Amino acid sequence: MTFTDQAQAARSASRTLATARRSLKDAALQSMADALGAAEASVLEANAADLAAARASGTPGALLDRLALTPARIAGMVGGLRDLAALPDPVGDVVRGWTNPNGVQVRQVRVPFGVVGIIYEARPNVTADAAGICVKSGNAALLRGSSSALRSNRAVVAALQDGLAAAGLPRASVQLVEGDREVTGELMAARGLVDVLIPRGGAGLIKAVVEGARVPVIETGTGNCHLYVDATADEEMALAILLNAKVQRPSVCNACETLLVHAAIADSFLPRALAALAAAGVTVHGTPEVCAVSDAVVPAGPDEFDGEYLSLDLACRVVDSLEEAIEHIRAHTTGHSETIVTTSLAAADRFVAEVDAAAVLVNASSRFVDGGEFGFGAEIGISTQKLHARGPMALPEMTSTKYVVTGSGQVRG
Amino acid sequence: MTFTDQAQAARSASRTLATARRSLKDAALQSMADALGAAEASVLEANAADLAAARASGTPGALLDRLALTPARIAGMVGGLRDLAALPDPVGDVVRGWTNPNGVQVRQVRVPFGVVGIIYEARPNVTADAAGICVKSGNAALLRGSSSALRSNRAVVAALQDGLAAAGLPRASVQLVEGDREVTGELMAARGLVDVLIPRGGAGLIKAVVEGARVPVIETGTGNCHLYVDATADEEMALAILLNAKVQRPSVCNACETLLVHAAIADSFLPRALAALAAAGVTVHGTPEVCAVSDAVVPAGPDEFDGEYLSLDLACRVVDSLEEAIEHIRAHTTGHSETIVTTSLAAADRFVAEVDAAAVLVNASSRFVDGGEFGFGAEIGISTQKLHARGPMALPEMTSTKYVVTGSGQVRG
Repeated sequence: MTFTDQAQAARSASRTLATARRSLKDAALQSMADALGAAEASVLEANAADLAAARASGTPGALLDRLALTPARIAGMVGGLRDLAALPDPVGDVVRGWTNPNGVQVRQVRVPFGVVGIIYEARPNVTADAAGICVKSGNAALLRGSSSALRSNRAVVAALQDGLAAAGLPRASVQLVEGDREVTGELMAARGLVDVLIPRGGAGLIKAVVEGARVPVIETGTGNCHLYVDATADEEMALAILLNAKVQRPSVCNACETLLVHAAIADSFLPRALAALAAAGVTVHGTPEVCAVSDAVVPAGPDEFDGEYLSLDLACRVVDSLEEAIEHIRAHTTGHSETIVTTSLAAADRFVAEVDAAAVLVNASSRFVDGGEFGFGAEIGISTQKLHARGPMALPEMTSTKYVVTGSGQVRG
Repeated sequence: MTFTDQAQAARSASRTLATARRSLKDAALQSMADALGAAEASVLEANAADLAAARASGTPGALLDRLALTPARIAGMVGGLRDLAALPDPVGDVVRGWTNPNGVQVRQVRVPFGVVGIIYEARPNVTADAAGICVKSGNAALLRGSSSALRSNRAVVAALQDGLAAAGLPRASVQLVEGDREVTGELMAARGLVDVLIPRGGAGLIKAVVEGARVPVIETGTGNCHLYVDATADEEMALAILLNAKVQRPSVCNACETLLVHAAIADSFLPRALAALAAAGVTVHGTPEVCAVSDAVVPAGPDEFDGEYLSLDLACRVVDSLEEAIEHIRAHTTGHSETIVTTSLAAADRFVAEVDAAAVLVNASSRFVDGGEFGFGAEIGISTQKLHARGPMALPEMTSTKYVVTGSGQVRG
């Protein structure tokens, strides 16, 4: 089957999904969960083959860990599908509505996008998560996974399609896009066949899709998240938030990557912070005035403040003012989540107003910027772009809207 | 000044605009209106020079009419700026908000995009309209008009900048992007400098921007709008809606371009419709069964059902069923506005559910799909894309959002 054949099958399936009632979609999600659970042995067998091939080609351990499926991870995928069945259906929500003076009624109603393309890396659990979110939101999914996870993804998708068919929805609602790199190019160029592309993975993957696609893209996020400790900060609170944001799960996009400390509090706060970070296993990469505080601090390189570590590393500098902190963040932000710790209402208000990011936090850990923590129940990613959706993206963000205009023969005067 | 210099000046101005209060923005809009009104003579002089050059180069009359400014058109631009001052400010609107179980408060707040690029054709009134909408929504505007309107646009922008400066806002809030075609390429490629691009103009311009841009684009609309007269339609109502949608203003995107008539009503309705259309000066391009009804019908060519006429022309065919009407619309729609006239609730429901467009209308003229008719007060265009905004785009659609998360030291468990 060519890519165009697949995309046309997806379009056809999307029409069925778009008008499917919630009860049918939820039954399909349960049936997909049942089928995936029943296919555990074949999925694990396929995954073992992927892992063996990856090991043989010298894949690093961290990537092997992402690629690996276990009974527990499969149970997580199954549970994720069942959780989706319990969430409200965004499709059909009336966003707003009114009656014009001439009696014409207007409603803005949520509708699915149609066909959603997901381009992702070697984590086979994304296959089930993304497929489930698409089905729940009434979208057909074209899943372009990594070649290193091909056997695993095939096994997962086969099970999901069995579940869809058992519930009476088209198998083509969820398809794996196979083939060489040219197929990725076809997917990215498929205006009219694919409505939205969502890349999920590292900064390189996201950049390649954003720059290469002709289909509209929702950019999900790299997070060079800053924590600014203001002159007036409660030091205990700042320490607790810093450690949580840096250490609790350093590999994720809402973890803290840069610490900015106001000069007026640095003499008191910085030694305590550096000691606590060292005790937690964090390597601090500091500017000279930070290095002067502790021998454990590594001198920061020239690009130290620009990237994501995604590890137990932290960049650190002292700033002379709130303005300087805001200027530093402007120059280096990826627009994800930026935090101030302060007791000053004026400083909090100014930081919130002037820092341009998907989320701006006052006296709370950036780890809260997450669909689950926001109570959304499901998350397809965290958007760092300004169009359509910004911040954690859940089911409503997987929809467009349609104006339904009803009258009794009115014409325009 | 290079394009990059202009874009950086726009970025800097956008920071001032983003935190400007409504009272300041409204004062600036009034001051821009005052300055534009005061500059009428110089604007008309510049426009006369543009018109003379356009005439000398053989520009067709319809384009000359779009290019032409008159005291009445300038008064319209001035009035448009004053109308914007009276509209609510979308910036700062709290879209939703809640408190997490741990006491962390989350608010989703409207914020400006930042820098908006508008690429448009030779209508100098767009210069003032787009600038005003950007300033009201807190965005800096980079205006890329047509070279044929350069003198007019320069005169309008100079007046608007005088008005901005008089109110204390940066002149760089509104800038004209001048130079050859390469500059358009720079504008379309300016990721990080420009947040959103909005093309306004004909199908060719919009296609070029959508396909060429690296900056996120909001596609505004071509409208191949269909009117389907169902078997059960009230014929008088169908005639009134048809004539209004086709004739009232044929050059606009929400005008009717294709008439589909159910076979069961065709013998009765079609002769009446063709006579009424002929009387209104409309040329009907029909399939053979339509041609058979009246000698005045011109045989439809092979691509007759795909484009916009934007004139007193109408494509017409007979369909055997509601399904066939929906299939025809699916095959030919540009996703703008699609209408059914029917007395059948089931037919109306099915049409609304299955036709995928920015607006779907039941028993009302597609001419109502318009920001002004929707009561939005201002409109930057009608989006035919599914991301971010779909349908008439007003001030809220010119914004993004930001999550503001406030706590008292909470960390993630």
